[in-house]
Amino acid sequence: MLEHVTDADDPRLSDYTRLRDVELRKSLEAERGLFVAEGEKVIRRAIGTGHPIRSILTTRRWLASLEDVLGDATVYVASDEILSGVAGFQVHRGALASMERLPLPSVESLLKGGGRRVLVLEDLVDHANVGAIFRSAAALGVNGIILSPRCADPLYRRSVKVSMGAVFSIPYARMDDWFEGLTRLREAGFQTLALTPDQHATPMDTIMPAERVALLLGSEGDGLSSRWLEEADETVCIPMSAEAMAAGVDSLNVVAAAAIACHELMRSANEFP
Amino acid sequence: MLEHVTDADDPRLSDYTRLRDVELRKSLEAERGLFVAEGEKVIRRAIGTGHPIRSILTTRRWLASLEDVLGDATVYVASDEILSGVAGFQVHRGALASMERLPLPSVESLLKGGGRRVLVLEDLVDHANVGAIFRSAAALGVNGIILSPRCADPLYRRSVKVSMGAVFSIPYARMDDWFEGLTRLREAGFQTLALTPDQHATPMDTIMPAERVALLLGSEGDGLSSRWLEEADETVCIPMSAEAMAAGVDSLNVVAAAAIACHELMRSANEFP
Repeated sequence: MLEHVTDADDPRLSDYTRLRDVELRKSLEAERGLFVAEGEKVIRRAIGTGHPIRSILTTRRWLASLEDVLGDATVYVASDEILSGVAGFQVHRGALASMERLPLPSVESLLKGGGRRVLVLEDLVDHANVGAIFRSAAALGVNGIILSPRCADPLYRRSVKVSMGAVFSIPYARMDDWFEGLTRLREAGFQTLALTPDQHATPMDTIMPAERVALLLGSEGDGLSSRWLEEADETVCIPMSAEAMAAGVDSLNVVAAAAIACHELMRSANEFP
Repeated sequence: MLEHVTDADDPRLSDYTRLRDVELRKSLEAERGLFVAEGEKVIRRAIGTGHPIRSILTTRRWLASLEDVLGDATVYVASDEILSGVAGFQVHRGALASMERLPLPSVESLLKGGGRRVLVLEDLVDHANVGAIFRSAAALGVNGIILSPRCADPLYRRSVKVSMGAVFSIPYARMDDWFEGLTRLREAGFQTLALTPDQHATPMDTIMPAERVALLLGSEGDGLSSRWLEEADETVCIPMSAEAMAAGVDSLNVVAAAAIACHELMRSANEFP
């Protein structure tokens, strides 16, 4: 159902208001139970993984590229100017979709799912980092992701985009009871590895991972909370070069560190099956 | 030398104009031979690595944190509103520095420098990616970085910031003659490894690296040019999980891939010294 829109303030476009305004989007998306997918590829993945379409907002030029997946969805067609006017930035990929959020699994069901590799993200604040970690996780054999209560939303537009849609394919859950989190992971049979820049920790490439491993990653600035660092079965690090240490380079960014750690888990599982 | 500025259009602040306007900044910074460092930590690293200060722009609140390194530099003190007004965005870290660019080394001198590990970046467009790769490289034993003619500028504000200052500590050069690039790397005694998502390439974790290795990384969208892929000594890949391949996850982002590859080079050099 095509509807032409000629006014950026048209209330029918309110799902797409000011997409870079994180505070506004948090409350708006929570209230309406929606998220926004951007660009043809990501929209296709969102639809393909069963998310119902609330509406699509696109330009005439990009409409054709999506036509085969639209079904009977409501499609608003507007100019580039109106798209940018509503969204609050230049929408280069010319297509936005407002999609319904699906209920998240509980932590229990996610842990019982038989997956062998789980990431646990504590209080990451940067949506691009969350998206990039989901993308790496999906490529490197991670079966599920658990988020701390304050960890940034994987379905925020920018997370979704940076993840290339991996946020739809890898199951994740929000752990409400963070205090008892490690206990629950252990009860479910997971070895808990806490990643730290501290070079006195066990080098990640010498780990012999257990059958089931939960890798704990901390926030961009401060890393893991001391409680999680202390209570984990083992603290692990990515070894840095001697020159780096001497020059005061003190850590990798969390996306790089997560990628290396996931790669090492996959590699060592192949070596010691 | 403190100067109070009360007008965002004050010509003395023109080094800091519209910091997110990439096209404007490219020409402005090239003409004046400057770059902008943001935040106390990065400004300290820029000064500590010998970059002359053109000026500092900060608020009264942040001034004290930098006082010990300012010497006789010109310091403009302004309100948060004026900082944001000039820069074109909310400057959270309250301090900007306009620094002089130093002459880059030539590719020849960089390759002759005795370094054993070099990254070669072909046409990366995203400044945050370039910065993140410099940060990983500095931590993981890379001795130098070579950029293709069109690769994004490591001294653009966002690259500098994301690199946490690693763009100052790791030498890099711009290769003008890209066509003959591989030949020059070989003449300098480097084994050339071209990183590709193609899972038929040699897995990075089975490589026995030569004494000197140049790792070639392609652009975000298209990866390495076919010429470089074909002419490299070996194409290498980061192995992905079988589930990922089945689900159509087709690649890692370039920051994650670069981090894993650098880590593997360091690890294998330790195993097979």
